[in-house]
Amino acid sequence: MDATWFGFAAATLTTVSFLPQVWRTLRTRDTKSISLWMYALFTLGVLCWLVYGIYLQDLPMMLANGATGIMASLVLGLKIKHG
Amino acid sequence: MDATWFGFAAATLTTVSFLPQVWRTLRTRDTKSISLWMYALFTLGVLCWLVYGIYLQDLPMMLANGATGIMASLVLGLKIKHG
Repeated sequence: MDATWFGFAAATLTTVSFLPQVWRTLRTRDTKSISLWMYALFTLGVLCWLVYGIYLQDLPMMLANGATGIMASLVLGLKIKHG
Repeated sequence: MDATWFGFAAATLTTVSFLPQVWRTLRTRDTKSISLWMYALFTLGVLCWLVYGIYLQDLPMMLANGATGIMASLVLGLKIKHG
């Protein structure tokens, strides 16, 4: 098996993983056990990955971090709103 | 400014971001608003990044994903335990 598939699986899993969190948070509006600092730092970090991906002109980095950035921002916004 | 710094900032931020979540969850044992599926898929994804980093013999990938993997597993374990 080509090891590159681990890279594709990794990128897909870490990106897609935020979907169930977004869905749960939108549905319940419950953000009590979620750390504000985690989502603040993580969203900023993903934004840096996106900038770095644009600099490298790397499409998978741009797509994965663009999608993750949108989802992490949503959870961050809901955390700020609902506390 | 060298754009590589965006890469370092990105790796540091997305790794370090899990610390406040681990700390909060260990302290409160409250995992109600955290998605089990998010942490299951994310931990598996980080494990794939780690394997891919080992394959590429890339030390930053190994270190960042090793650290993130430990923290994400901790949150996942606490979620499974406390529901």
